[in-house]
Amino acid sequence: MPINRSFAAAAFAVALALAVPARAAEPIYAPNVTTFTLQNGLQVVVIPNHRAPVVTHMVYYKAGAADEVPGKSGIAHFLEHLMFKGTTTYPDAEFSSRVAAVGGNDNASTTDDATSYYQTVDKQYLGLVMGYEADRMQNLVISDATLLPERQVILEERSRSIDNVPSSRLSEAMNATLYMNSHYGIPTIGWAQEMAALTADDARAWYNRYYTPNNAIVVIAGDVTEAEVRPLAEQTYGKVPKRADPPPRLRPTEPVPLAARTVTFSDPRVTTPSFRRAYLVPSEATGTTTEVGALSVLAEILGGNSMSRFRKLVNDGLATGLGASYFGGGLGDGTLNIAGSPRGDHTVAELEARVDQVLADVVKNGVTEEEVARAKKGVKAAVILAEDSPGSLARTFGSSLARGETVEYVQHWPDRAAAVTLGDVNAAAKKYLDIRRSVTGYLSPPPDVKGPA
Amino acid sequence: MPINRSFAAAAFAVALALAVPARAAEPIYAPNVTTFTLQNGLQVVVIPNHRAPVVTHMVYYKAGAADEVPGKSGIAHFLEHLMFKGTTTYPDAEFSSRVAAVGGNDNASTTDDATSYYQTVDKQYLGLVMGYEADRMQNLVISDATLLPERQVILEERSRSIDNVPSSRLSEAMNATLYMNSHYGIPTIGWAQEMAALTADDARAWYNRYYTPNNAIVVIAGDVTEAEVRPLAEQTYGKVPKRADPPPRLRPTEPVPLAARTVTFSDPRVTTPSFRRAYLVPSEATGTTTEVGALSVLAEILGGNSMSRFRKLVNDGLATGLGASYFGGGLGDGTLNIAGSPRGDHTVAELEARVDQVLADVVKNGVTEEEVARAKKGVKAAVILAEDSPGSLARTFGSSLARGETVEYVQHWPDRAAAVTLGDVNAAAKKYLDIRRSVTGYLSPPPDVKGPA
Repeated sequence: MPINRSFAAAAFAVALALAVPARAAEPIYAPNVTTFTLQNGLQVVVIPNHRAPVVTHMVYYKAGAADEVPGKSGIAHFLEHLMFKGTTTYPDAEFSSRVAAVGGNDNASTTDDATSYYQTVDKQYLGLVMGYEADRMQNLVISDATLLPERQVILEERSRSIDNVPSSRLSEAMNATLYMNSHYGIPTIGWAQEMAALTADDARAWYNRYYTPNNAIVVIAGDVTEAEVRPLAEQTYGKVPKRADPPPRLRPTEPVPLAARTVTFSDPRVTTPSFRRAYLVPSEATGTTTEVGALSVLAEILGGNSMSRFRKLVNDGLATGLGASYFGGGLGDGTLNIAGSPRGDHTVAELEARVDQVLADVVKNGVTEEEVARAKKGVKAAVILAEDSPGSLARTFGSSLARGETVEYVQHWPDRAAAVTLGDVNAAAKKYLDIRRSVTGYLSPPPDVKGPA
Repeated sequence: MPINRSFAAAAFAVALALAVPARAAEPIYAPNVTTFTLQNGLQVVVIPNHRAPVVTHMVYYKAGAADEVPGKSGIAHFLEHLMFKGTTTYPDAEFSSRVAAVGGNDNASTTDDATSYYQTVDKQYLGLVMGYEADRMQNLVISDATLLPERQVILEERSRSIDNVPSSRLSEAMNATLYMNSHYGIPTIGWAQEMAALTADDARAWYNRYYTPNNAIVVIAGDVTEAEVRPLAEQTYGKVPKRADPPPRLRPTEPVPLAARTVTFSDPRVTTPSFRRAYLVPSEATGTTTEVGALSVLAEILGGNSMSRFRKLVNDGLATGLGASYFGGGLGDGTLNIAGSPRGDHTVAELEARVDQVLADVVKNGVTEEEVARAKKGVKAAVILAEDSPGSLARTFGSSLARGETVEYVQHWPDRAAAVTLGDVNAAAKKYLDIRRSVTGYLSPPPDVKGPA
């Protein structure tokens, strides 16, 4: 099941960043979203959309990899896998096949800050899948018989998606380098040596600590109304007893970074050299709304659209690709990311030098009103598009609420984003495009630049 | 009070490394050391040395910065300071003045793995200082009245010893980069933003969790016998009740590092550019005895003596200084360290390239029997010297026992070190002098090499 992470999931990162800026025509984002809370503390969010007779049903647990204790990396994601392995009610790992049997599909995802499960089904089966989710919220069976083979599965997933993918390896090392004080430097999927040692006791402790209704948010988007959802929620989730008070979510702050860092990963499988850079910047959770909006617009101006500063370098034939994105969707600090590959005979060093010129110019001379207006306009279209997608809205509300925001706060994104000014963008550039805040990663074929390897 | 850390405390690092190799004439190191344990779990180690009528008295608590929970960095060192601020018995922060009043001196030290307190006094006052230590082991007063001003003191200590010292800043950033999974990447003194938020509750929790006799080791070295020490220990420490069972010491292992990293710190106060490199290697606690011995000898051959490989570069006029050391004294992985400054018009890049040539040659062609023999001989002298210093022996036994070793294990260092062969050294070089395991740090005057700053 997928892992989302700052470097690893550019698509997800962009989706969140794009959701920030303004939609001038409407004062409120997704205005018909409502929410209510059951007696056991479970929060339900309803996002009506009647275009098609389907619903997306998601449950978010406020527990992700960054909640893991030292030495137990990977347990958040491992538990996600174990959630499909059977309950006392349905012992035969039949969750997905039961969803498929009614024509639906399902999956799950673990990030640093949340674990989510989702199904898309014909609306008549909503109550059914809510029942399945409520069942595995309280009746999960964790035994060595299912855990030990599944541990092999997550190790193979790590091997396939990280160890055998040079760019993922680089991302992992860059994250470990960028984050100096928080768990965000540890890969969401876990370190192999720790994953291999996870036990049934570890899984049970995690499940009992976090998989309790008062730590869950259910998001239902599609062809439903709150009036229809409420009785279904009472009959399913409403019957799950509260089992624990989850511990406070420790998110140690990062010190102000004062030394520029690089990471070089060489691998025979690399055919095209490339580089990336990540600057440590505030997130929705750690920054001011002004800074977060400004960073989102700045990323768009640098490398987000067809008239971006970086696009010019691509057009000049210097790079096959060069982009920028902002990831601010975590409970801890986020990243402003740059990634590029030189074209033809151009070198990474040459491309990086040109990128640094662009950045230095933005820091020194600022961007223009026109660029800010274009960036806001560009993202507006994406937001309108996202608002039409029940699945996308469900993810936006689910992940925002899982990091402690309210429905109302999410709905007021447009006001905050519309308020971003040229001055805000230029101030953010000056403050955050500081090489000392960054890690630059190089992906290259061997041999390394220097030293024995 | 001092902080010892891999990069920060080269002297300490070398002392430990030197203690490893052989002393051929004697099968046992410090053969007259004895140990006993009181009923409350406190271990006492006695190191008789009758040259002068003085004793060094140390207490080690098995708790250091790496035992801190996320977000509370600095609490181990802060508590060390608070231990001098008064008890219910002696409320007026008079510990040091009372020791000075009998002609003694005292201090304390915090590392990642232990906190230690020591006094050197005339032998007749041993019982007195044991009483003082036993008193503050159970009767410490922690109040905002003393804590708040002392918090300012540790912040100023951090400012003076790290923030205002470019090489310390670089060390801090290198450590944060080198350690990807363990607390060793967090500075022993703490991150300023977390130190500033430490409270009396945090200090009390730390004191109650760790400052219990069953978590302490008392080392007494000098003009005493076990027969003299035993009744004094019973009358002082013996009366301190066991108050807690300390939690397990979490030391998550590091993943095998696969990407070379650099850290660049530029500061106007830097007048001479320099570079350092740290390779992640096993420690006494994480490695095999063969590897630890081999790494110790390897560091000596590379840059530890007047005929070392690096000394040749100094003699050639390329560097003002260039050395190597091994730090293997922690509960987690250690480091093999290189540090150098170019001379005159030579650049850091030029010096680093030459160092890399030396390393590549050692990896490819190995060292010689003669070099191994010389390295062992060189350290033997240092060990003999250390064995004559009661203070030095006390520190060696105290820190070793605090990381879980036994007196007997320490005494058998010579056997293990004598067993190191040319093959062991060459195997260690091949395995660990791998650029991918390393972080290289550059200290330079501004401007940075690239990018806006």
